[in-house]
Amino acid sequence: MMTSGEIKRLCERVKCASRKLALVSTRDKNRALIAMGKALVKNRSYIIKENKKDLATAIQRGMPSAFIDRLGLTESRISGMAKSMFDIARMKDPVGEIIESVRRPNGLLIKKVRVPIGVILIIYEARPNVTSDCIGLCLKSSNAIILRGGSESIKSNTAIFNVLTGVANKSKLPKGSIELIKDTDRRVVNELLIQDGLIDLVMPRGGESLIREVVKRSRIPIIKHYKGVCHTYVDSGADLKMAEDICLNAKIQRPGVCNAMETMLVHKKIAGRFLPCMIKAFAGSGVEIRGCDATRRISSGVKRAVESDWYTEYLDLILSVKVVNDIDEAIAHIMKYGSYHSDAIITKDKKASGKFLNEVDSACVYVNASTRFTDGGQFGKGAEMGISTDKIHARGPMGLLELTSYKYLIFGSGQIRR
Amino acid sequence: MMTSGEIKRLCERVKCASRKLALVSTRDKNRALIAMGKALVKNRSYIIKENKKDLATAIQRGMPSAFIDRLGLTESRISGMAKSMFDIARMKDPVGEIIESVRRPNGLLIKKVRVPIGVILIIYEARPNVTSDCIGLCLKSSNAIILRGGSESIKSNTAIFNVLTGVANKSKLPKGSIELIKDTDRRVVNELLIQDGLIDLVMPRGGESLIREVVKRSRIPIIKHYKGVCHTYVDSGADLKMAEDICLNAKIQRPGVCNAMETMLVHKKIAGRFLPCMIKAFAGSGVEIRGCDATRRISSGVKRAVESDWYTEYLDLILSVKVVNDIDEAIAHIMKYGSYHSDAIITKDKKASGKFLNEVDSACVYVNASTRFTDGGQFGKGAEMGISTDKIHARGPMGLLELTSYKYLIFGSGQIRR
Repeated sequence: MMTSGEIKRLCERVKCASRKLALVSTRDKNRALIAMGKALVKNRSYIIKENKKDLATAIQRGMPSAFIDRLGLTESRISGMAKSMFDIARMKDPVGEIIESVRRPNGLLIKKVRVPIGVILIIYEARPNVTSDCIGLCLKSSNAIILRGGSESIKSNTAIFNVLTGVANKSKLPKGSIELIKDTDRRVVNELLIQDGLIDLVMPRGGESLIREVVKRSRIPIIKHYKGVCHTYVDSGADLKMAEDICLNAKIQRPGVCNAMETMLVHKKIAGRFLPCMIKAFAGSGVEIRGCDATRRISSGVKRAVESDWYTEYLDLILSVKVVNDIDEAIAHIMKYGSYHSDAIITKDKKASGKFLNEVDSACVYVNASTRFTDGGQFGKGAEMGISTDKIHARGPMGLLELTSYKYLIFGSGQIRR
Repeated sequence: MMTSGEIKRLCERVKCASRKLALVSTRDKNRALIAMGKALVKNRSYIIKENKKDLATAIQRGMPSAFIDRLGLTESRISGMAKSMFDIARMKDPVGEIIESVRRPNGLLIKKVRVPIGVILIIYEARPNVTSDCIGLCLKSSNAIILRGGSESIKSNTAIFNVLTGVANKSKLPKGSIELIKDTDRRVVNELLIQDGLIDLVMPRGGESLIREVVKRSRIPIIKHYKGVCHTYVDSGADLKMAEDICLNAKIQRPGVCNAMETMLVHKKIAGRFLPCMIKAFAGSGVEIRGCDATRRISSGVKRAVESDWYTEYLDLILSVKVVNDIDEAIAHIMKYGSYHSDAIITKDKKASGKFLNEVDSACVYVNASTRFTDGGQFGKGAEMGISTDKIHARGPMGLLELTSYKYLIFGSGQIRR
């Protein structure tokens, strides 16, 4: 295992690089990003060969098929990673933007200027494309990055890292701007999490237990979401055909991700008309329904939902369904059982949608659309570093802008405080 | 001591109040704030009477005079607290502001809207005015607040809290929006720091050891600064008279606060001309100098600075002084020994000031002004909740805007993800 000293020195090296990276021009950053995108495509056979080794281990260990699916790299997935690099290169550089400028009565000119955060540590599981997306976003926003992927994708991550650092070393980016921790011992993470002063932000991505462990141990600020128990509430004022399309999409289009719907809430007035068709449509797509008593009275053959179901992120073709008396009960349910990620109301009633938007305290609140849109790409942010359900710094999908801080530059002419 | 259950229930009550507080109108908030300001003045004798009890205990315990000074309340200090309330009432309500609005190609309208953070826990020491300033700022930004002051000011804080909640209970603010923890047992803080999910943000204010303890234990996001080792670098291109005025002000105007200068760096080219006068001026104000070897060669009778001096926040009439070879050495010194709070360069040379502003990675970087201006009031933010040297969420003085988060409201017409 890496020693504490080795870990500290690595972090010092990255911190030092981050100071220089903050001063690199947009043009030099974009050139490096474009070269990185091209290098990914050029070296795709090498990356796929290494990824096959991870896949073989995962299959041998009997990992579930959804896991294998997230882990696997194909030529088209690698093209997608390259495209992200090109997209990020084209986006506006957030660093140096003057956010605000104030002249005080004493003549002091105070400018609030956007700057990089510094050093970002990302801790993630399975998906190897996270490696290149995060490197792209961090470099464009002049942040140095320390990557710590899971052991299950270590060969794929190392291959992608090797290709990208190969490019970085020939570019104007300072050495040490990107580091990959290849030691998969858990204790290395614990050691990284006490490097406050060297690492400025930790972003854990993965299962809830991983993230809770990081929160418990870290002395460094964290941005995260634990899970995505997303709701769609079909109001009495809903267009029922639209509601059916949206709910089906929110559940089945990609059930294994955090913005998929896990619970559907239905106003009692329309439950009798809406639920039979809706549940039939779900059945046709292989979705298992776990319903409240009222749901089970309306639709026969529905399994009973127990209390724990309302808290559960299934990440699978399972859906809990509850009939509610009114919008207040729907909102109260979302606030009690939800995870403040993405929640939707389906209604034509402006008063109902206004109330829902105001009172649902989630990162993304939707009217008449699928929760599946909570995504950096869909929001127009290029790729995303992760999704936050915290109230601090960033909420929802995090792109380039969310990877910046600011500082105050104060211009005086001899002002002193009286 | 309060039980875990009592602490949890208190937090749940405040969380519940915070949801309602988010919906209170600006007018109702302002009315309550103005009534609070008036009530402080009206009840000043009661507050001063209770404060005298804290002062008596502090004197009995032999606390230092700077401590006694921070703790004491006078009629004029209470008027100042009331004035802050009136100022905050006059400021623009940040809640509900539309920060950004984007129409996506698929027709989705995405609005980024400013919302309160939710529940804020403030942990602080000695200064009782923090109680009313923080209550004012939190209520105006629709945040519920839990206050945990130190045992040394418990009677003063309780008196201020009683006066302000008396007003709150007669206003349109939801019950439970303000809570003061009267139990001064340390373990209560530890229990509060694991209430993630109920408390959204912790702001510790006080000594470095208090803050380190909070960082170690908290599962809730924190915004903080550990200390303020602020520097003034007198460049070779400085107006030496201006430099003398600024440095004197930065050191002596109020030495016990975080934005006072602790280290003065002087370019070797002007050290021989600048230091003798400057050190004489400091001596005249009772400032003890601890200098590097070059400083001691130029000015006789200066004590030798040891390595630990460069890291020290004296909060007193003591100053460390170092002669540097060039601006690069000055910047490197600040980045190595400083606390990224407030640092200044004194120079007429635009190239030097530009370099300093770019490369010094502190919350507030000054050209030709005293670091003493790092303050919410001086920045035009009304009062301040604290000063951040973190890179996450807020940097520098935190006012109303820094006490907000945002959420995305997404308006669709049936959009589903393909």
